[in-house]
Amino acid sequence: METLYVVKIGGNIIDHSEKLADFLQSFAALPGKKILVHGGGKLATQLAEKMNVPQQMVEGRRITDAETLRIVTMVYAGDINKRVVAALQSHGCNAIGLTGADGNAILAHKREKAGIDYGFAGDVDAVNAELLHALLSLNMAVVLAPITHNGKGQLLNTNADTIAQETAKGLSTHYNVQLIYSFEKSGVLLDANDDSTVIPSINPSYYQELKSTEKIFAGMIPKLDNAFAAIRSGVGKVIIGKAEELPALIAGAAGTSIVHE
Amino acid sequence: METLYVVKIGGNIIDHSEKLADFLQSFAALPGKKILVHGGGKLATQLAEKMNVPQQMVEGRRITDAETLRIVTMVYAGDINKRVVAALQSHGCNAIGLTGADGNAILAHKREKAGIDYGFAGDVDAVNAELLHALLSLNMAVVLAPITHNGKGQLLNTNADTIAQETAKGLSTHYNVQLIYSFEKSGVLLDANDDSTVIPSINPSYYQELKSTEKIFAGMIPKLDNAFAAIRSGVGKVIIGKAEELPALIAGAAGTSIVHE
Repeated sequence: METLYVVKIGGNIIDHSEKLADFLQSFAALPGKKILVHGGGKLATQLAEKMNVPQQMVEGRRITDAETLRIVTMVYAGDINKRVVAALQSHGCNAIGLTGADGNAILAHKREKAGIDYGFAGDVDAVNAELLHALLSLNMAVVLAPITHNGKGQLLNTNADTIAQETAKGLSTHYNVQLIYSFEKSGVLLDANDDSTVIPSINPSYYQELKSTEKIFAGMIPKLDNAFAAIRSGVGKVIIGKAEELPALIAGAAGTSIVHE
Repeated sequence: METLYVVKIGGNIIDHSEKLADFLQSFAALPGKKILVHGGGKLATQLAEKMNVPQQMVEGRRITDAETLRIVTMVYAGDINKRVVAALQSHGCNAIGLTGADGNAILAHKREKAGIDYGFAGDVDAVNAELLHALLSLNMAVVLAPITHNGKGQLLNTNADTIAQETAKGLSTHYNVQLIYSFEKSGVLLDANDDSTVIPSINPSYYQELKSTEKIFAGMIPKLDNAFAAIRSGVGKVIIGKAEELPALIAGAAGTSIVHE
């Protein structure tokens, strides 16, 4: 099967225009099929401040009232997504930017959790693999903004990590998917304060050992649980590392690879 | 050839949420291939006010400095485009929302006009008919926001009427294109103050007669010149009328048809 790269970039890159420009140049140069999933960074919070719309975060998730939904849709699907697409085009990479509403790419439902009203926050139900496969087959890179819809006319603010994971899983029947999660560290670290202690590769048994000996930073555990869930669902490989090192991450020369065996 | 409807809706519909909802229901119900081009209405001006970014208009065109470009991209490509797409999906119409940067759909260049600096305003160079044809062939309606790019990484604010016209022309080799311009009047009027004086049909010779006898409102002349230019470039028919009457416009039971003979 052909390889597909699904690359998720976080806010630390989005917020830094030079790092973003460098990253997009590397992404544009990746050969073959590729999908970029971007988060929002601080821009939505900044716009909300300018517009005097108070923002509330619970457990790292933004409480998305109607006005905030409009702000994140403008920032993620408008400003960021279109700047990214235009930059990729300038590097000769034909890109198309989508939300989950576009082509019904990602269907979600409003998150219901006892005790907390997240507002218009979405949990993913289905990724439209046929659409994404068709667009990739037109030799376009797909750039996904973290906005989905419920099919009933409601847009929903949705976690970009989840979108990357569900997209990678959904396309694993069509491609050998490599899912790259970029974040601010160089990979999964043995010592959270020392960027030189990257673990090059983690398989399920080593993960159990790392967890049982408490050698792993607690904040990494949800990310790694998700990564192992992804490879159990058919994703070929998950790579965790710095967006600035994208070519090295792909080449296996940097970051941490989460592998089957 | 198969019929393609290219429908342009103006600000008077965008600014009116009930009219917009009704229009989108009618648009979703149109059979066959279709493209919707939307303008921006007053929302960009309202957001600019909230953000304290002064706006300047010259001859009805917005002077687009860098901050204003960001605002119109957020409003047109983010807020409006995605609300429209989500609403169409809720009516069972699979829609995909694009700017000119997406899939390199519409290439433009920065407008240069002696004496006036319009800022990041774009004049259209090329419509990517192959891309739009491919997306339409996937049975999606395409929803175009009035933002283009120059291929060098620069987004450009672009007139929605022009985008509709160039798109209609560009696709006329693939389809029998019907271009529908909706605006606040019921059609081209013999008496600009009387909405019951709609001229049902205008061909080139009748247009000459209307112009020479000064029976036509001066403000309509650029619109009509563009409409005749479109049919000379291969567009099958141009219809001018109210968005609220879309089914009747398509059926030839309302509005003004601009025809070859």
